[in-house]
Formats: sequence, structure tokens, C-alpha cells
Amino acid sequence: MTRAITSTLLSPEQGGPVKRTVLPSGLRVLTQSVPGFRSVTFGVWVGVGSRDEPVHLSGATHFLEHLLFKGTERRDALEISASLDAVGGEMNAFTGKEYTCYYARVLDSDLPLAVDVICDMITSATLTEEDVESERDVIDEEIAMHADETSDHIHDLFAEQLWGPTPLGRSITGTPESVAGLTRRQVAGWYRRRYLPANMVVSVAGNVEHSDVVRLVRKAFERHWVSTDAEPAPVRRGSRRRVPTYGGVRVHHRDAEQAHLVLGMPGLVRSDNRRFVAGVLHGIVGGGMSSRLFQEVREKRGLAYSVFTFGSAYADSGMVGVYAGCLPKKAPEVLDVIRTELESIASGNITPDELLRGKGQMRGSVVMGLEDTGAKMTRIAKAELVYGELPTVDTLLHRIDAVTLDDVRTLAADLYAGAPALTVMGPFDEDTTTFAL
Amino acid sequence: MTRAITSTLLSPEQGGPVKRTVLPSGLRVLTQSVPGFRSVTFGVWVGVGSRDEPVHLSGATHFLEHLLFKGTERRDALEISASLDAVGGEMNAFTGKEYTCYYARVLDSDLPLAVDVICDMITSATLTEEDVESERDVIDEEIAMHADETSDHIHDLFAEQLWGPTPLGRSITGTPESVAGLTRRQVAGWYRRRYLPANMVVSVAGNVEHSDVVRLVRKAFERHWVSTDAEPAPVRRGSRRRVPTYGGVRVHHRDAEQAHLVLGMPGLVRSDNRRFVAGVLHGIVGGGMSSRLFQEVREKRGLAYSVFTFGSAYADSGMVGVYAGCLPKKAPEVLDVIRTELESIASGNITPDELLRGKGQMRGSVVMGLEDTGAKMTRIAKAELVYGELPTVDTLLHRIDAVTLDDVRTLAADLYAGAPALTVMGPFDEDTTTFAL
Repeated sequence: MTRAITSTLLSPEQGGPVKRTVLPSGLRVLTQSVPGFRSVTFGVWVGVGSRDEPVHLSGATHFLEHLLFKGTERRDALEISASLDAVGGEMNAFTGKEYTCYYARVLDSDLPLAVDVICDMITSATLTEEDVESERDVIDEEIAMHADETSDHIHDLFAEQLWGPTPLGRSITGTPESVAGLTRRQVAGWYRRRYLPANMVVSVAGNVEHSDVVRLVRKAFERHWVSTDAEPAPVRRGSRRRVPTYGGVRVHHRDAEQAHLVLGMPGLVRSDNRRFVAGVLHGIVGGGMSSRLFQEVREKRGLAYSVFTFGSAYADSGMVGVYAGCLPKKAPEVLDVIRTELESIASGNITPDELLRGKGQMRGSVVMGLEDTGAKMTRIAKAELVYGELPTVDTLLHRIDAVTLDDVRTLAADLYAGAPALTVMGPFDEDTTTFAL
Repeated sequence: MTRAITSTLLSPEQGGPVKRTVLPSGLRVLTQSVPGFRSVTFGVWVGVGSRDEPVHLSGATHFLEHLLFKGTERRDALEISASLDAVGGEMNAFTGKEYTCYYARVLDSDLPLAVDVICDMITSATLTEEDVESERDVIDEEIAMHADETSDHIHDLFAEQLWGPTPLGRSITGTPESVAGLTRRQVAGWYRRRYLPANMVVSVAGNVEHSDVVRLVRKAFERHWVSTDAEPAPVRRGSRRRVPTYGGVRVHHRDAEQAHLVLGMPGLVRSDNRRFVAGVLHGIVGGGMSSRLFQEVREKRGLAYSVFTFGSAYADSGMVGVYAGCLPKKAPEVLDVIRTELESIASGNITPDELLRGKGQMRGSVVMGLEDTGAKMTRIAKAELVYGELPTVDTLLHRIDAVTLDDVRTLAADLYAGAPALTVMGPFDEDTTTFAL
């Protein structure tokens, strides 16, 4: 493949059409033109995440994400951040278990600058020894901060418990110990091996023309990379065997006003077509204020301020769970109510009204969740990088409408029969037997 | 005034014109029509906040906000939440020091439902004894949750320190003790006296027609309220004397991985025209990644993950401050760097480049911060309720452009010479002398 190949993926809907170009290097460029907006969100998604790390590199993907902001051959850290601050833009990045994303939101006239700066970081980070040492301190700070954000941190601890010593069980940031062990040489090697054009997707939404974006991106990338022909990397499928999961109960001691608990079990893999059923089920069990758990735990009993269901899906594994935060003395009762409701739902006790509300909630989040350029940018990037398909909004709505009460009952029985894991954090002895499965 | 009076406040800009109707009851209805969106955000703003509470009612405004979701003459708590969940809408509320807001984001076709439900809550909450008791438990949970969110909670502790025993110094939720003391009778009295049409603003942005909104709102409100003629309440001005502020150092012991500190001083009142200068100054000192504090604390020294400036403005008082979270052993050095930079800036050491970046950041946040219906709804409501003016986006941009280096230097010298207050939280003795002003 030596020429760029462009196609139109979606006709106009919630903005203009989605267009896709594959450059000779295998780099993909997707845009959605959204007239009426002044902003453009520009993102570069790299198909590498913490689950790709061998254990001795734990935290390297996230460390690298930090280091890209520290300097390139043309810019130091201040020049990188000052360039977009000066035009009122926002720039940030995040590392996940299966991908890393760098993005900027700017006025449409500042898109060339955003492309230039982010592509410069992606292709030409210098990763100096000095920056590695200074950023190691910043990451230590970040890890300490997360450890204190107990209602977030418990999700990390739960993942560790559910997935155990597999890569999905490890924290994205790594641990202070693993980060202390990473050398400049290791991180630079990770950068060289993983930040390849064929493993990246550029995604843009806003008041833009596809051809302009392609031209800007080519110019920015091809100034650094000798163009070698490559096919885009295929969508990540994971191994054919599902990642093993672990269960059981773990209590983490923490002196605090509130206790936190997460009860969860294995969920669907990302490509599972029952994900629409799972979305509706989430609405029914713990998605909104009218959900079963909110009503039973908060409205009827005043046991917690915050109680909700959540889930995550990866190429070859997934999880569904319930989170609640409450005064420590109430934690055993909260857990009882949650278990009772999950059992009730797993045994088929779901009303047609609940089904309607679950479907309504999912419809609303599909339609209203796409009303900004950042959300549109994310949607088309994930479609390309991890789903391998880009359904129209109408198709999504049809799939939601097609979910039946039987579908939901069957899935609930399946999911909630999975081997559970329970993670508790609060002012408890770690060997307490108060919390059992 | 016996007829509704309608006027057009803004010509089309960032969406359609803003229209305003004053109903005979004094209720104001503002809309901005935004074509191209499927969502509508509908809000009701009540001009009552925690600072209006006498000390024996501390927490009553927030308690009331919770109770409105518990039931009306026509709906129980499940019916209130289920109605909007079923159509995929989102509904929420928040209580501030000077106002309370209820809002819903729904598809445009569901606006009549959102208006009906929220107006029902506003006019006809039943506030039963049973709901008061159950919700008191939920608020205890909420207070415990906030106490654990240390990087947020320190802002409450700082306000308490800066404003001392004045109403602005008290927490919006009240304390567990003050909440325990509130009776149904007291909260119901607060509702009756404060939730008056003349003290409310209805604000809507999205794909709507002004006249439709006015008709829906009239129908929903006038079914409950006998129409008595009233003028809208004037914008809150506060007393002519500024609220007194207090200073000094306070250390709060907390066993945690991170320490948190806030250093701040009195800021501008809301109506102060120097607020545009203050916005630019914020960008320069601690608004983004290229700001002075981010560069000095994080980029150059790796001392903290999070460091930024912030501020708040009320009718008759305001504050500006710096927040940093870091490992406890680094806290004294972080405080030193922050103080050194504030002194440097107060003495006029600001470069033209920094001015440009500060102005750029503020411009970007004005233009890009208005790209959703929720932000537009909030803008027009606050213009009506607390500012008393609605400048166009162009006017805002002109005012930002007009800020000079001299303006910023003069204001920095003024603000940072104010009597400082320092709040520290972390694993320290509360009588340590490590932290001084």
C-alpha cells in the first residue's frame, strides 16, 4: 500500500459524516465534521496499555505518557504546555489497560498548532535521564494521591483481587516499587517498540475538513518517520482463552469516616453481542436514581449516599460490579441488601417497568452522550481501535430496543452466578470475618 | 404587573437569542434556543443558599434540596426518579452558598415531562416526617464521604478558617450535629419562606422555543401557586460592609499518604470589574500546565502531582488561593516554593509572554466552556440571579483583551498582600510549628 486510501464510514448523523484515511505507514486518520461548533478535539490513540507490560515493566506505559510532556527535539516542557495555553486550548492524556490517548481541545483555527504539538510529542520525545528522574517523583505523588482517593482506589484493589496476578489485575500506574525500578533505557525501548504508526489512530471531531486534517497529520508525522509501508494493526482480540479470574474476600484496613465495598464477578468480553443487554441490566440494577439498588439501599433505608453498578470490558475478559460507600457500622447491612437484590434479580425478578426504564436510560446516554466534540472523537477512535466496527446511532438504538425481558433475565442469571469477589476498605481488622460471600 | 413581559436579551451568538419573560408572580423564565442539539437542559434556580441560614438552621437549605426528591403530592420518590430515567434523562441538584439549583437534561421531546416533574418538586414537596428521618441518615453519609475526600474537604476547612464564624465560613451541608438538630417543622418553614416565585429563575437551553417553555412553566407553576403579583427579587448585593476575614495557620491531622495545603487570602467580590484581571492572573499563576506554579512545583522540582490556583466570589466577599497535594515530607518545601512565587508575582515579576498565555487561557475557557446546553443554561441563570447583567461573548473577549500587564501587576500586589490563611491536612501533629506564615 503506497497511497493513502480514504472512505466514508457514516453518513451525516449527530454531526457530519465520519471519514477514514489509511496512510502508507498504516497510520489511520478518522474525522467527523461537526458544523456549528467552535472547538475541535484532536486525539492520538496508541494501541498500548498497561496489560501489555511484562511484570518487570509494570507502569512503563503510564510513565511514558508522562514523559512525552517533558520535551521533544524541538520543545521543552514549558514550550509544550505554553503553546496550547496561549491559545486557550486544553491538552491532556490518559493511560488505560489497552490503550493510551493524547488529546487537545482547541478553537478550530488552532488545529494546526494542536496537530503539530501532539505529533511532535508522539514522534520525537527525548526522554532524558533528568526528566525520567524528575517525573518518577511526580508519579510517586500521583500514586500516593490515588491511594488516598479511597472511593476510586477500591476499584484498583478490586481489579487486583478479581484478576489476581494477571496483567489485568495490575494497577495502570504500577506500584512505587515497580516505578522505582524502571530505567530510562527500558522506557525508551518501550516507546520505540510500541509507538508505531500502524498501532495508532488519529481521531478528530469538530469544525474540520477531513482533507485538511490528513494533510496536517501527514506533514507532522512524516517529518519524523521514514515512511515504511505497513498495514494497520488488527483490533486486539486477546488470547482465545479467557483471562482467569479469582474470587474471595479481602478487607483493607483504612482509618476513615466511610467504608467502601465492591462486590463483583466476571462480565462480558468487549465483542460480546449481549453488551446491549448488559447495558440495560446495569440501568435496572444500579444505573440511576430509580434503579433497584438506589431505591433499596438509599431511598428506603438511608444506608448509603452512593451506590451504583459499573462494569468494564476488555478483549478477552470483563467484569460487572456494585460499589457502595457508607458509614462503617452500616457496611454489613449494605452488603446484605446488595446480595439480596442481586439474588432476586438473578432469579428473574425484573418487572416490565424496570425493563423500560433500563432501556430508556441506555437510549438517553447514547444520544445525549455524543453532544460534544470530545465524546465524538472518542467514539470514532474506539470504534477503529478496539471494536472494529462503527454502528450508527440508529443501529445502537435499534439494538437497545430489541432487548427483551427474557434477554435480561437470562443474562442476569448468568452473570450473577459467576464466582464473586468482594473487596472492602474501612476501619476494620483485615482478618475480620464480618464480610463473607 | 399583571401580564407576562417578554424581551430579547442577546442576539444570536453561540446559539440563538436569549429571551426573558417575567411572569406576574415575579418568576423569571430565560431561554436560549440552540439549534442542532437533541438535548435540552432545564434548570430552576432558587436564590437561597447556606449563607442565608441562621446558625440554628445550618444545613437546612441542603437538607431541603434532598427532601424535594423524596415526594410530592402527586409522586413518591420512585415516581420522581423513574419518570426521567424512563426517557433517558438525567436529573440532579446542588446547593451553594448563595443559590440552590435543580436541573434536568433530556431529549427535546421530553421537555414537558422535565418541566412537570421539577416544578412539581419545587412547588409541592410533602416533606414527611418519615422522609426527613431517612434523608437525615443519607446526609450523614454524604458528610462522612466528603470528610474522606481530603483534596476536596480541605477547601471547606480553608473557607472555615478564612471566614471563621460568619455564614460564609460554614459548610454547606452543615455538620452532623447541626443536621441532627433540624426538625421537619424548621425545614418546612424554610421551604415556605424561601421558595417563592419572585426568588426563582427558570433557565433553559437547547432545541426549544421560548413561548413553549413559558407556556409549560406557567401551567406547571400556576397549578400550585395562587398568582400574586410580585416583582422579581433584586440581585443579591450583600451588606455594604465586606464580610470580615480571619487568617492564621491551622493544621488538621489525617493519616494518609498525601498532605494537602491551601494558602489563600481575601479576593474580589463578584461585581468587581477587576474580575477579568483576576481571571488572567489566575491563568498566569496556577491555571494550566504552563503556569508559574505548575512549572516551579511540578515540572522543575517534581514536588507535587497537583498544584493550582482557584478562587470564589460572593456578593460581598471573595477569596483567592493555591492548592497543592504532595507527599508529607515535601510539604514544607512545596509551601516555600509557593510563597516565593506569590511574592515574586506580587512584586511585579510577570512577563509579557505570561500575560499572553493568561489571556489566551481565559479566552479559551469563555468560548469553549459554552459548548453544551448545561453550560449555556447555567450562564443565563447566573447572569439573571447573581450578576444582574448578561454580557455577550464578544464583550467578554473584549474585556479580556483589554487587560494590561500593569493591571495584572497592580492586582497581584493588592491581592497577595492580603492577610493570608493557611490550612494544612496530613499526618502531622496539630500543634506542629513546621508550617508558618
